[in-house]
Amino acid sequence: MDEFRFIDSIKPSYYRQSSVIKGVGDDGAVIQPNIGHELVISTDTMVDQIHFNLNNMSLEDVGYRVMVANISDLAAMGSSPLYYIVNISAPNSVTNEDLLYVYQGMNDIASQYRMDLIGGDTTSGHDLVISVTVFGNVSPKKKRLRSSAQIGDIVFTTGYLGEAGYGLSLLDSHKHDKLNYFVQRHIRPQPRVDFVRVTTNVNRICLNDVSDGISSELNEIANASNVSIEIDWDKVPIHKDMNHLEHSRLKQLALSAGEDFELVGTCSKGDWKLVRSLCEKDDIKVTEIGKVINRGEEPSVYLNEFGEKLSLDQSGYQHGNS
Amino acid sequence: MDEFRFIDSIKPSYYRQSSVIKGVGDDGAVIQPNIGHELVISTDTMVDQIHFNLNNMSLEDVGYRVMVANISDLAAMGSSPLYYIVNISAPNSVTNEDLLYVYQGMNDIASQYRMDLIGGDTTSGHDLVISVTVFGNVSPKKKRLRSSAQIGDIVFTTGYLGEAGYGLSLLDSHKHDKLNYFVQRHIRPQPRVDFVRVTTNVNRICLNDVSDGISSELNEIANASNVSIEIDWDKVPIHKDMNHLEHSRLKQLALSAGEDFELVGTCSKGDWKLVRSLCEKDDIKVTEIGKVINRGEEPSVYLNEFGEKLSLDQSGYQHGNS
Repeated sequence: MDEFRFIDSIKPSYYRQSSVIKGVGDDGAVIQPNIGHELVISTDTMVDQIHFNLNNMSLEDVGYRVMVANISDLAAMGSSPLYYIVNISAPNSVTNEDLLYVYQGMNDIASQYRMDLIGGDTTSGHDLVISVTVFGNVSPKKKRLRSSAQIGDIVFTTGYLGEAGYGLSLLDSHKHDKLNYFVQRHIRPQPRVDFVRVTTNVNRICLNDVSDGISSELNEIANASNVSIEIDWDKVPIHKDMNHLEHSRLKQLALSAGEDFELVGTCSKGDWKLVRSLCEKDDIKVTEIGKVINRGEEPSVYLNEFGEKLSLDQSGYQHGNS
Repeated sequence: MDEFRFIDSIKPSYYRQSSVIKGVGDDGAVIQPNIGHELVISTDTMVDQIHFNLNNMSLEDVGYRVMVANISDLAAMGSSPLYYIVNISAPNSVTNEDLLYVYQGMNDIASQYRMDLIGGDTTSGHDLVISVTVFGNVSPKKKRLRSSAQIGDIVFTTGYLGEAGYGLSLLDSHKHDKLNYFVQRHIRPQPRVDFVRVTTNVNRICLNDVSDGISSELNEIANASNVSIEIDWDKVPIHKDMNHLEHSRLKQLALSAGEDFELVGTCSKGDWKLVRSLCEKDDIKVTEIGKVINRGEEPSVYLNEFGEKLSLDQSGYQHGNS
């Protein structure tokens, strides 16, 4: 399939978003942003053998997953997905026909949010490198910035943590088929756009998505908000079918493995009841795991376990007594 | 330099565009698009050994050049540059310190247009792969679409054609230093934002930028506008210091080599005088090279030379008599 037929194949026959003035097919896309809204832009690159492995994931799965990582960033900003553009550099062993599966996987999840493909670029290269850039809409007062945590806030997470990391290890062990629940949580995670939608009327929520593990995400929140955070290990939501895992392994998965694409954040004590009841109505699991406290010498994240308070760095390493 | 210091190093200390609400440093950038304007989005990927060669270009030059290719797309849409995001995947041999030179080269040209870096992603990989996505502003009625050519229009180009291709061949021959005029036209081309600015009051201009050579660009215009185009070889502007080149080589450079990042387009006969005088005032070279004609059986591009009319395909191959 030559370049022109390829572009024709991926070019949408219509655009779901009325704000798309010109999509694929000129020197650039043209959009007419909604008046009164801000535009959120986020981007993620994934590389074969580093962020995924074509030996145990299909091209469709890869497309799906890189799109989820991006949509998850839009959710973490409190925005609603609108459009995406795709840059792919692919080795000769991956034909244009093969690449259509990547786009198919992207569309599988993007279409759930009525997102439009509005542009991109495809080149040859030695690696398969996929960059997706996504665009979302947000009402100015409802941006969910990681710098907005306040002392006294409740710290919460959606879903269960560590599932994607556990799924990846099962996938790598070749002992489980692709339909295993945890393997699916790695291959086809679900971004938490639903959480953003049901909590849109809550005044202030500080959010990060769990791409690098909550040790990293909570440290980012603590630093950006200039506060400290403490969480209780006992409260961290772990799926019951992972309880048989060795304790240190469980902690590594839940705190550092990441890629669950759940949302972790904070809100005021007063709003926490509201958040919980809004989520309950829509069957979205949300769990209180700790609180925002005064920063000491510098913004830190602490993990309470067995009556001890350990400092938790970005990588999930626990050290010292505070 | 670790990831955090690296991000701190590339993070702008301030934003030139007041429409940047949140730049680098959260899950996404947030912008407040100008009311009454549309937003143009364009993207280009370049790969080492395919689109550039680190053996004869510095990392700064590479950054500069990928940014020019992108800004040129914004110009070809008639838009004014605003922001950019950068996705880089780099091998271990390219350190974060090295990558700062890529960003420096990008900033060298981006700062000329007061563009802001608002986000991106850096990962490891086997190749050096650089994707840049740019954003520009355009008044809805002043979009310069490739589908807007009309029968009777004048076809024009800015600058000289084939210079960048000639410069690349000199660079590859190692016979000329980097300061040679033509080598510089390859390494540090100038996007034609100036043309867009001075012609902003002209009602309708159809534009494409010369990234793949005018054979390709004019065919794109003919197809998108459902017209045919004929140009005269004698009118194609060639720098006098290339006149010694063999005739077929000269044609290949001027028609197919591309990467001059000049603008080629069409406008009405009535507006052509205006375009010419506006450009003259600002010392922007612009040349009439042909006209838009009725499509025959299908949209085509013709080259008149020696009294013959040859069909010119996308790749610059000339065939048949019409």
